[in-house]
Amino acid sequence: MIYGNTISLQTKGFSDILDITRKVQEIINESNCQKGIVTITAIGSTASITTIEFEPALVQDMKDQLEKFASRNMHSHHSQTWGDDNGFSHLRASFMGPGTTLPFSNGRLVLGTWQQIVLIDHDNTPRNRQVYVQVIGE
Amino acid sequence: MIYGNTISLQTKGFSDILDITRKVQEIINESNCQKGIVTITAIGSTASITTIEFEPALVQDMKDQLEKFASRNMHSHHSQTWGDDNGFSHLRASFMGPGTTLPFSNGRLVLGTWQQIVLIDHDNTPRNRQVYVQVIGE
Amino acid sequence: MIYGNTISLQTKGFSDILDITRKVQEIINESNCQKGIVTITAIGSTASITTIEFEPALVQDMKDQLEKFASRNMHSHHSQTWGDDNGFSHLRASFMGPGTTLPFSNGRLVLGTWQQIVLIDHDNTPRNRQVYVQVIGE
Repeated sequence: MIYGNTISLQTKGFSDILDITRKVQEIINESNCQKGIVTITAIGSTASITTIEFEPALVQDMKDQLEKFASRNMHSHHSQTWGDDNGFSHLRASFMGPGTTLPFSNGRLVLGTWQQIVLIDHDNTPRNRQVYVQVIGE
Repeated sequence: MIYGNTISLQTKGFSDILDITRKVQEIINESNCQKGIVTITAIGSTASITTIEFEPALVQDMKDQLEKFASRNMHSHHSQTWGDDNGFSHLRASFMGPGTTLPFSNGRLVLGTWQQIVLIDHDNTPRNRQVYVQVIGE
Repeated sequence: MIYGNTISLQTKGFSDILDITRKVQEIINESNCQKGIVTITAIGSTASITTIEFEPALVQDMKDQLEKFASRNMHSHHSQTWGDDNGFSHLRASFMGPGTTLPFSNGRLVLGTWQQIVLIDHDNTPRNRQVYVQVIGE
């Protein structure tokens, strides 16, 4: 069966990283499925979903790495077109991808002990974000 | 139920970026499913699928970013082995990944307003590309 | 129907790249499904799944590219926190993502001729790795 629900989050932008593991697990619980997959998607073109060991030092490393990859101060054609200085946000998001699909078994996400699911909001302003979670299972 | 179909596209290579959103939606329509997920995969090891705001300035920014990441002029061991100068194409493709999985609901892809699904063909020559679209839904 | 199984692998770490295509196909065979998708996930926060042309020269290029992206000698806050020098491993893994989802049809993975599925273990030590393979098909 298929069950979908939305997670709403307030972010700070600039690749703000939020742990959404518990909320994804809750949606799997709501589905009453014991095994399957869950597709987790950030709606919009300036955010990503991945997994990380969610601890403050590594969260800072990830933000530093994204800054090195595409700096918030970079020149972009996109910024010139729209007067919206978030070209770097789009590049980070399209490179990392908008979502990820993960398995669950015995009703639980199959993850490592130090592996959390995160939303990364790359935009250049605080935003209210929607993450769509689609469960396919039985 | 499960429904698959193929999109065929002519590309220019060198990370040519093509909007395939409408074609993916058409395959969802063909499946007659109202909710589910769609797995979109570029067949071959030198192309990727992601989402982006598909407008010309940002498309150019993305191509510039990929050039910065792995330049078409880079030295690669792969190129020395095969006499085929597309090491950069493989690195871009493997890093971004060959595909993405996205949700749909009420028969429509769940995407942001400025978020399109794109094929990026990283190869170093024009190609006829196949994108496999697998719908899982009900 | 849904069928899951685990692949166990011994790796060398430092972005060691292992071809798991045959093992993924075997799990699809075990499922007795003819069409569907397969979600392949590296359990843990320092490994990735992607596709690549699995030949030695390109495997070396990929390792060189990952070293350029986030060097094993980089300074990381994470390393300072835990005394565990694998900040680079986490950054590589979170950027590439922990897994990928691919289609199959007529009982066979839909892949290009020179496209193999690989586990990349980014950790800074040899490890025994588990890859969870979830088949959704019919």
